Amino acid sequence: MIIKLERLEVQSRKDMEMIDITSQIESVLTRSGLQNGLVLVMTTHTSSGIVVTEGVECLERDLLAHLERLAPKEPPPGTYHYWHNRFLDFDGRLGFNAGDHLKSILGGVQCLLPVEDGSLTRGGRQRVYFVEYDGPLARTVLIQMLGEGA
Amino acid sequence: MIIKLERLEVQSRKDMEMIDITSQIESVLTRSGLQNGLVLVMTTHTSSGIVVTEGVECLERDLLAHLERLAPKEPPPGTYHYWHNRFLDFDGRLGFNAGDHLKSILGGVQCLLPVEDGSLTRGGRQRVYFVEYDGPLARTVLIQMLGEGA
Amino acid sequence: MIIKLERLEVQSRKDMEMIDITSQIESVLTRSGLQNGLVLVMTTHTSSGIVVTEGVECLERDLLAHLERLAPKEPPPGTYHYWHNRFLDFDGRLGFNAGDHLKSILGGVQCLLPVEDGSLTRGGRQRVYFVEYDGPLARTVLIQMLGEGA
Repeated sequence: MIIKLERLEVQSRKDMEMIDITSQIESVLTRSGLQNGLVLVMTTHTSSGIVVTEGVECLERDLLAHLERLAPKEPPPGTYHYWHNRFLDFDGRLGFNAGDHLKSILGGVQCLLPVEDGSLTRGGRQRVYFVEYDGPLARTVLIQMLGEGA
Repeated sequence: MIIKLERLEVQSRKDMEMIDITSQIESVLTRSGLQNGLVLVMTTHTSSGIVVTEGVECLERDLLAHLERLAPKEPPPGTYHYWHNRFLDFDGRLGFNAGDHLKSILGGVQCLLPVEDGSLTRGGRQRVYFVEYDGPLARTVLIQMLGEGA
Repeated sequence: MIIKLERLEVQSRKDMEMIDITSQIESVLTRSGLQNGLVLVMTTHTSSGIVVTEGVECLERDLLAHLERLAPKEPPPGTYHYWHNRFLDFDGRLGFNAGDHLKSILGGVQCLLPVEDGSLTRGGRQRVYFVEYDGPLARTVLIQMLGEGA
């Protein structure tokens, strides 16, 4: 039985950004020697996410724009407010990213992919994205492989 | 150790439709011989999803209607637009289903169920649905079993 | 190979409530003897969820309030209605919690955490929450461990 846990470092360059990490996951998988089993991909940050969807630039823009519509960084004037947007004693600074935590929850923080004969099994159009909602930041993604080797 | 990956073919008959695949997953599980472990259920298409919820027809209608409210096929007149709704060179056709990709991301594309003594372990009201957002189409769902046999 | 399935009983005290169950998961994990592998955490109820996010009280309030904005218990007057909000023959009572099922789907019903050297592997700010959308109720959460012992 193979059980290996790797860390992938991802550097986001914008406030919000979708970063396709599929080929990096495939490289980690190949190095692991796993032939059949599972790969878990999980962000370790609560204002970022992991999303599986089609890999086209226009859709990347739509996803980020639509999550901003559904969970905006600033509520529309005269509506609600976020409780998290206040001074946080334990942090010594203003909390200001409630909307980004909400995006993370709506879009999800992990995915699990089957591995068959050493390859990720996924649909022809499915790509795995790290999604930054509160960048730019240096981020860590966990990649765990579990199953059998050759 | 048992690791088996099966494909389930699902034919949707409508533009949007919830199809309960719980008993089909159970049949695949029984044939696999898995006694204890996990079953991963994952759609391979980026305009469809996998959802675990209560199995009643009225709720199926509510889920589809509500995801259409949250991520409509056409944005309300005079508001935003989708970048994906344009001619896609790589596809040779109009992209027109941005809202359906968004529904897929919001509702999720996979679930994982524990297996105990050869049976799916789930709540008494939990059913596993394949959710079509952009049909009718012939679709493929991955079912992977991992664990121990008898 | 270790495969163990445990049940965690959770008592919610409010209509909607976020209950941090991270330390309870860690206790179950320690008792299991699992050293390396996976822990699956899954609610068995379709009007509740499992969410991974930052553990601060102000954000707990924001998440519950925002999911109520996105999938309200009662639709805004003069807009849509829920099909599920009607007399359910099979239940002998009124269905009245369509919005809570929708929250469960949007927020998700499970998470999967890597285990390394006997410890849950997660980001420094990530906590695992059971989320009640339709309480107060006695609830059951599945915790399954899979991998290798010492």
